[in-house]
Amino acid sequence: MVPDLALAHSLFHGLAERGYDGVGITRDAYGPGEQAAHDLARAAGEALRLETEIDPAGNLYMTLPGRDRALPRLILGSHLDSVIRGGNFDGAAGVLAGLAVVGGMVAAGHVPDRDITVLAVRAEEAGSWFPTSYPGSHAALGRLDPAALALRRPDTGRTLAEHMRALGFDPGWVEAGQARLTPANTAAYVELHIEQGPVLDRAEIPVGIVTGIPGARRLRAGRVLGDYNHSGATPRRYRADAAVALAELAYRLDESWAQLETQGHALVVTFCTLATAPEAGFGKVAGEAGFQLDVRSVSPVSVDALFAALHRLVPEIAARRGVRFDLGPETRAAGAAMDPALQAALAAAARDLGIAHRVMPSGGGHDPAAFVAAGIPAAMLFVRNQNGSHNPQEAMRMEDFAAACAVLGRFAVGFAG
Amino acid sequence: MVPDLALAHSLFHGLAERGYDGVGITRDAYGPGEQAAHDLARAAGEALRLETEIDPAGNLYMTLPGRDRALPRLILGSHLDSVIRGGNFDGAAGVLAGLAVVGGMVAAGHVPDRDITVLAVRAEEAGSWFPTSYPGSHAALGRLDPAALALRRPDTGRTLAEHMRALGFDPGWVEAGQARLTPANTAAYVELHIEQGPVLDRAEIPVGIVTGIPGARRLRAGRVLGDYNHSGATPRRYRADAAVALAELAYRLDESWAQLETQGHALVVTFCTLATAPEAGFGKVAGEAGFQLDVRSVSPVSVDALFAALHRLVPEIAARRGVRFDLGPETRAAGAAMDPALQAALAAAARDLGIAHRVMPSGGGHDPAAFVAAGIPAAMLFVRNQNGSHNPQEAMRMEDFAAACAVLGRFAVGFAG
Repeated sequence: MVPDLALAHSLFHGLAERGYDGVGITRDAYGPGEQAAHDLARAAGEALRLETEIDPAGNLYMTLPGRDRALPRLILGSHLDSVIRGGNFDGAAGVLAGLAVVGGMVAAGHVPDRDITVLAVRAEEAGSWFPTSYPGSHAALGRLDPAALALRRPDTGRTLAEHMRALGFDPGWVEAGQARLTPANTAAYVELHIEQGPVLDRAEIPVGIVTGIPGARRLRAGRVLGDYNHSGATPRRYRADAAVALAELAYRLDESWAQLETQGHALVVTFCTLATAPEAGFGKVAGEAGFQLDVRSVSPVSVDALFAALHRLVPEIAARRGVRFDLGPETRAAGAAMDPALQAALAAAARDLGIAHRVMPSGGGHDPAAFVAAGIPAAMLFVRNQNGSHNPQEAMRMEDFAAACAVLGRFAVGFAG
Repeated sequence: MVPDLALAHSLFHGLAERGYDGVGITRDAYGPGEQAAHDLARAAGEALRLETEIDPAGNLYMTLPGRDRALPRLILGSHLDSVIRGGNFDGAAGVLAGLAVVGGMVAAGHVPDRDITVLAVRAEEAGSWFPTSYPGSHAALGRLDPAALALRRPDTGRTLAEHMRALGFDPGWVEAGQARLTPANTAAYVELHIEQGPVLDRAEIPVGIVTGIPGARRLRAGRVLGDYNHSGATPRRYRADAAVALAELAYRLDESWAQLETQGHALVVTFCTLATAPEAGFGKVAGEAGFQLDVRSVSPVSVDALFAALHRLVPEIAARRGVRFDLGPETRAAGAAMDPALQAALAAAARDLGIAHRVMPSGGGHDPAAFVAAGIPAAMLFVRNQNGSHNPQEAMRMEDFAAACAVLGRFAVGFAG
């Protein structure tokens, strides 16, 4: 069985044509952009004579029937939406890899023991569209909080429920908590995805096998409050300088991160934004500044260790500099460990094929976290990519995609028979 | 001779009525706000039967003739414009103090040996109106660069020349470099001004005698350039984080300042603004940040020592963090030492009156710097004030103003006879 890469190439091309926004790729969740991608994928699935089905939340299932339809299925899935002015590969590569693998089986006349379903999940890019994690997956799993239906897409101002209805879907099904996928009918969810980071590229390794999806603790609206003063007329001892207090916090927390890494912790710590308030300006000591802090690790212990450092630094800096910190609301995201047996099977497939791979944590959140939360074993395969993701320069070499598809195909044959 | 404080109180009241903008005080330079203040001051000068004159740049001279008109005059001056939504005292206090002193002489029938001129200078608040230092003083001194006539007021979009003409003044006189005031006809320029800082207030001293106006080196458009990356997927060693690089520069430069102070340097160092670029956002490592740095001291050596630290830190941080600093254009302002004999005479006047005073540097720039540059001895008297300046909460107690006027009056009698 050889994955049908020609099919995948053709679909990448079709997606890029439909999604080009003049700068990058935009496929808006529960809007025309994502729908066009779903239509294209569905047409490809139907051409392969897969059983295609759309659940009432709009997720697309394309199934190669197995010999024993009663066995729980293997899902090869990902999402088809993109961020605003993103790239063509984030999300779509996983769906197209599933179609390439299943397409290769169809071409070879291979009938697996159990169903293999290529799943196109809705609305994964929470940062651009609906501000909630994995609404498509959670809906398919009967676990989407109905409150999410009232969330509004920032660009349209319309709710998730309104967007669903406009496309002919049924928010009532979500509210009722009906599950299309359960541990009883689904044996595993495996997602191929571009890495989004530089680790594989710098290491010159085409494929990554993911150990887990990180948990996070986040401050999205931190503030430092001091006093505005004349920058010439205010000596050092009379200042309450919000700018330098924030600079000290950011610098010393970065030092704490470096120290934790030398102690063996693996985490990432980012001041995504830091800025004096609009009232600040030349000739003034800044009286207010704001920041956003993002701390992630597969290990909650590491995240908590960094926050412990934060909570030691804040009162010390506040007292010494005469400022006040308002950390604002903290949000937490639970991490998810990938299934060890699935990881081992993916690694064995790569080894058998002679394809170099690295075992590594994910940096971002992905739909497999929703499946793990629902009790379904999940795994992820990363493809080396260039220029990060969520930007028009996002890139992926087709030979790396081919290597990852080969691993995925060999794994699928082994797992589904 | 007792300064006419009732006159000053009445004029403060009249200025506040005319300048109130609904939030604070706005007297726009070479606009209706400043003109209304000049009209009010001129009417007061005429009521005192002073010789009033307006030069072709709009500066207002109100002169009490001395016995010997050939002797070079003493000027008591300041500006009448304000920042946008500023307070009632910054600038105006100096002109009103001059009128109070001269008014007291008129009431007492005192005729000085030499002319005493109360001078209301135009357009001192460069941060709000025309972006050039002391255009009114420089014009009176025949030293205003004609290029300044083409500068535009940000709120009106009109040039300084257009604003002058609209009020009936003559930019051609400025272009010709005619000097109304010279070292030959002016013996000294003395300006009373609110302190604008907390030093006198915290020390519980009503009056300050200024040693000098600080020089400055300024970066108004500094930038740090790194790479935008996924905040979850980019490990520490692959980052080029502009936010934390800027935080390190601000924090460590603040440390350098503290160290210089322990070595006896007196200076102020301010990151007036620091901010990640608008493209930064949650979920991303910041690829760009900007900052404004303001370094001032009466001693150029101290300013240069801080900049030497800056130029040591920048390449070190850039190399370690993989970012690039673009410091942008640097602007320099020359400082100006106040005349030692005038300082001594002001201190003697305060001592004679039993008024506590502190000898201190100015924090901000003021018109006396223009007079010093033209070769005319100058001095400044600070009045204790509260809540800084350039904001609607700016405050000054009338008893402190009275103490400063008493010192100014005694000095004037001693200097002008």
